[in-house]
Amino acid sequence: MADTPAPEASKPAEPAAAAAAAADAPATAGGEEAGEAGPSKKALKKAEAKAKKEAEKARRAAEHQANQAAAKAAAGNTEDLAKDSYGPALPTTKVDSPRAHLKNVDESLLGKTIKLRAWIQNSRMQGAKMAFVELREERDWAIQGVVAASPEGTPVSKQMVKWIGGLNLESFVLIEGRIEKPLEPVKSVRVSNYELHITKCYVVARGPEVLGMGLAVSNRPVANFDDEDPAAVAAAPAADAAVEAATKAVEAASLEPGAALPGASMATHLSNPAMHKRSPVQQAIADVRMTTRKLFAEYLDSQGFNMFEPPCLIGAASEGGSNVFGLPYFEKQAFLAQSPQFYKQIEIAGGRKRVYCIGPVFRAENSNTPRHMTEFTGLDLEMEIEEDYTEVRDMLEATLLYIFRGLEERCGEQIALIRTIYPSEKFLLPQPGKEVRLTFAEGQALLRAEGPEEYRNVSDEEDMSTPQEKALGALIREKYQTDFYILDKFPEGARPFYALEDPANPKLTNAYDFFMRGQEILSGGQRIHDPETLVARLKKKGVDPESPGIKEYVDVFRSAGVPPHGGGGIGLDRVVAWYLNLPSVHLCSYYPRTPKRLTP
Amino acid sequence: MADTPAPEASKPAEPAAAAAAAADAPATAGGEEAGEAGPSKKALKKAEAKAKKEAEKARRAAEHQANQAAAKAAAGNTEDLAKDSYGPALPTTKVDSPRAHLKNVDESLLGKTIKLRAWIQNSRMQGAKMAFVELREERDWAIQGVVAASPEGTPVSKQMVKWIGGLNLESFVLIEGRIEKPLEPVKSVRVSNYELHITKCYVVARGPEVLGMGLAVSNRPVANFDDEDPAAVAAAPAADAAVEAATKAVEAASLEPGAALPGASMATHLSNPAMHKRSPVQQAIADVRMTTRKLFAEYLDSQGFNMFEPPCLIGAASEGGSNVFGLPYFEKQAFLAQSPQFYKQIEIAGGRKRVYCIGPVFRAENSNTPRHMTEFTGLDLEMEIEEDYTEVRDMLEATLLYIFRGLEERCGEQIALIRTIYPSEKFLLPQPGKEVRLTFAEGQALLRAEGPEEYRNVSDEEDMSTPQEKALGALIREKYQTDFYILDKFPEGARPFYALEDPANPKLTNAYDFFMRGQEILSGGQRIHDPETLVARLKKKGVDPESPGIKEYVDVFRSAGVPPHGGGGIGLDRVVAWYLNLPSVHLCSYYPRTPKRLTP
Repeated sequence: MADTPAPEASKPAEPAAAAAAAADAPATAGGEEAGEAGPSKKALKKAEAKAKKEAEKARRAAEHQANQAAAKAAAGNTEDLAKDSYGPALPTTKVDSPRAHLKNVDESLLGKTIKLRAWIQNSRMQGAKMAFVELREERDWAIQGVVAASPEGTPVSKQMVKWIGGLNLESFVLIEGRIEKPLEPVKSVRVSNYELHITKCYVVARGPEVLGMGLAVSNRPVANFDDEDPAAVAAAPAADAAVEAATKAVEAASLEPGAALPGASMATHLSNPAMHKRSPVQQAIADVRMTTRKLFAEYLDSQGFNMFEPPCLIGAASEGGSNVFGLPYFEKQAFLAQSPQFYKQIEIAGGRKRVYCIGPVFRAENSNTPRHMTEFTGLDLEMEIEEDYTEVRDMLEATLLYIFRGLEERCGEQIALIRTIYPSEKFLLPQPGKEVRLTFAEGQALLRAEGPEEYRNVSDEEDMSTPQEKALGALIREKYQTDFYILDKFPEGARPFYALEDPANPKLTNAYDFFMRGQEILSGGQRIHDPETLVARLKKKGVDPESPGIKEYVDVFRSAGVPPHGGGGIGLDRVVAWYLNLPSVHLCSYYPRTPKRLTP
Repeated sequence: MADTPAPEASKPAEPAAAAAAAADAPATAGGEEAGEAGPSKKALKKAEAKAKKEAEKARRAAEHQANQAAAKAAAGNTEDLAKDSYGPALPTTKVDSPRAHLKNVDESLLGKTIKLRAWIQNSRMQGAKMAFVELREERDWAIQGVVAASPEGTPVSKQMVKWIGGLNLESFVLIEGRIEKPLEPVKSVRVSNYELHITKCYVVARGPEVLGMGLAVSNRPVANFDDEDPAAVAAAPAADAAVEAATKAVEAASLEPGAALPGASMATHLSNPAMHKRSPVQQAIADVRMTTRKLFAEYLDSQGFNMFEPPCLIGAASEGGSNVFGLPYFEKQAFLAQSPQFYKQIEIAGGRKRVYCIGPVFRAENSNTPRHMTEFTGLDLEMEIEEDYTEVRDMLEATLLYIFRGLEERCGEQIALIRTIYPSEKFLLPQPGKEVRLTFAEGQALLRAEGPEEYRNVSDEEDMSTPQEKALGALIREKYQTDFYILDKFPEGARPFYALEDPANPKLTNAYDFFMRGQEILSGGQRIHDPETLVARLKKKGVDPESPGIKEYVDVFRSAGVPPHGGGGIGLDRVVAWYLNLPSVHLCSYYPRTPKRLTP
């Protein structure tokens, strides 16, 4: 920064780090409250929490001023010999040392001076001449930075130490330092066998004086997913702020993550998207999600499938119509696709043999549960059948097994990290050749014979309830040692109009559901490819074959000979959530959309 | 089919093949009309065309009956010894010979009996005892099938020949036959050095008596993209049917594709999605599109990018708002995302370092041009900047060069096929190290100095018009021998509020556009990461920083230190269309959405 002198006078007065401030403060009342911050009492505590937040703000501001004064006093009239080695980064600020990445720090870098870009995730003064800062480069890759003033004031002055120790948390900094061995391993960071002796530090992007949600809180289990009650939602940030303050006090004292401490609500997480996404657990979940998506495509590519893109905007609410979003479209009405079903079939009619697609689907269902979203990602495939519909069923099964085995191989580190926050039992897979494929009737029989009393009243003609499905999942896990299985040959009444009836028994269909830990993640089967059969089944289901959308669909099968085909649709969010046994699909989505939430 | 006897009496009376019928008929008036079927006259010809269509239908029906009678007469009272070797496929129909694929037919199969599943794309009787059928397995992989009655009536009888020769075009059949050498190569099919001597033939899915659009017409250049005038659209199918009839007459006589004959309108193509998609040219375009998409992801994966999924449903029309689709969302209003811009930036704020996404974006723009759609696929990336915005620009450039070189390597066959229908000059790429990156000002200067007179009046402060851009593209092609280049450092007035001004000259921005054959395919640049600068620029642009959507956006940058970053958005449809020099992006889209069209 030789060409950009930053004299003390022009340097912005950085406030003391919030964490340091909290460490000096006595544990506030917020600490006692944290445990009670449940959704049931939140609405009542709104006003109280708000008042506390104001008080906390005022306290911090006062402390900030005190710290500034202290810094000025410390600087005194002595010249700051390190003044070019710290300050806000300017467009011209450059550090010439070689760029290092924390993932690659090893013995070869010992004693070397390197350049790093990182977030300050924690900081602490040790007397007036030394400060410790945790520098996080990405996910959980952080190192302890040490800055200590030399008696000569160069390369590090007392002013520089004070300034660095007082930087706002989650500021993004450009750092120069020397890789050294710490006296003992630094437990609070992942790069625990090294530390960085800071020689230069420039703030590229300043963090706020008070974080809406700290990283430690963001990395804890979400306390509740109640997004329904507006009063609770409004109160949540205040309640969460109290949690946050308590947490900071504890953490600043110990510099260790307080995993046992309470987390914030999902509403708070989503109102603080940057901090929500910076938490190692959310980054690990994102990695698992994207790996799942990629494994799906990778396997199907290897099996000769063609990817394609179905539209979101469609001209008719052809699949049911009750849970569909409609919108004005120039002089017409458009709808948002609830599934790519018809389009997958048009691709098969168009001679594409085997197709898959990955994209958003929409459901205008006013369900406020941890299992539902209004927009989610569908993984869909459709393929020609040569001899028998089991070709499709087995292709889907092989695809999911490929995904599960691939996740174990490629995301072992992420899965382990997630389990430290959201504990789960290992996801049991069947031994090769011992895949579990029960008929729907066999599943019902098992539930009737061995299930809990209250879930035994299942019918052979109707689908099971969610609790019944879960109970059956538990029975199957116990009996077959697997969390992944198929129910095949669903009753006719439980399947949509395009499902092909079993030629041997028209009460059944060539259709199946797949389950993970007792929860449905896939629905599929063979489709009707003959237009006359399709019209007959539409009528049987009470759907007018001439109605908008339906007519155009049937016409496709009339327009050219369409081979027998089948497929299935997988909910990506659910696969990830149930694989990791997360409490809600909202944790897996990048931007969950629910009836109550459209932001960020 | 041993277990499923199909006695002659129960066999459905298949009509004579439409093509065979057309071959017998004299060239109809439709033949002369074809050349005139332009959009300007269509509306006027609607009634006339409709009448002709009816006449054609009646003629075909009469011929059908005549053929049936002839078949019956041919069958006479003699027993059909081949009766189990043909007919409609039943669920129990099986052919035990080994399955072959036309891609793999070679000398090793000579004399072998194989099983095939294919569409009948053309057929022709040769006397009463022999028929030729073109069997297409996928895209342009077709073989000539020969079926000849033996004097003994087994394995092939006269009745069987007549039945096969009379199958409706685009029926999907299960075939058994012997691979043999033809007397001379069969020019009309790709597998020209072999033919299939048919021994069994079962119809799995019957084609219609009259195709809405034949494969040969579907595989010709689309005649016009006029989707605007409802009268023209309504008249199009009738006009196209006339074209179709003329074509069939010519083709049935020669069995060669009539590439010089007129094509159908885009409206007809889209009203016949199965036949539109079965054309080799559309399948080749689909392959190029998906390869482009995959190359994009593949390159960014190799560069450490994380894929993510932005939402389609958003809570505020934050980017402009004029061309945004709105929809009722429970008690609120939702909008469809016009770009993933804000979400890419939230991912960067969330510490994801380098991200990309591939997905639908929406524009409620009432533009009925070959360049516009209301839903299209965006390829977007965003990345942290370490030193300078050129890191991003060069990453985008490298990504596109990787795509272009990958397309040449992986889609050579498809590109060659497409050029036979839609001719184009080779897409010129710069030599490595000689990439063309002009500043916007340099581009303007070039146009002013050497461009056509009418396009020279460009301004340094405003963006160019489309014709000006194309003229500049021609100049650059001539001067630098490349169809791909960058214009960098756009004027401030031509860029959105999130574009960072050039620190050295606030009249410019660190923003660029990329061009292919003189048409813009990418817009990008460095974004403002500092909330105060962002608020100042919002105000300068006349946008209220407190307005819905904008406030939440700015708050992200206030909530935690966000590193400098930049990116770009690529229109997948345009990349494919301009790479192949297609007349419209509608040809590249699986299901094009325009102000006038929401189907299929």
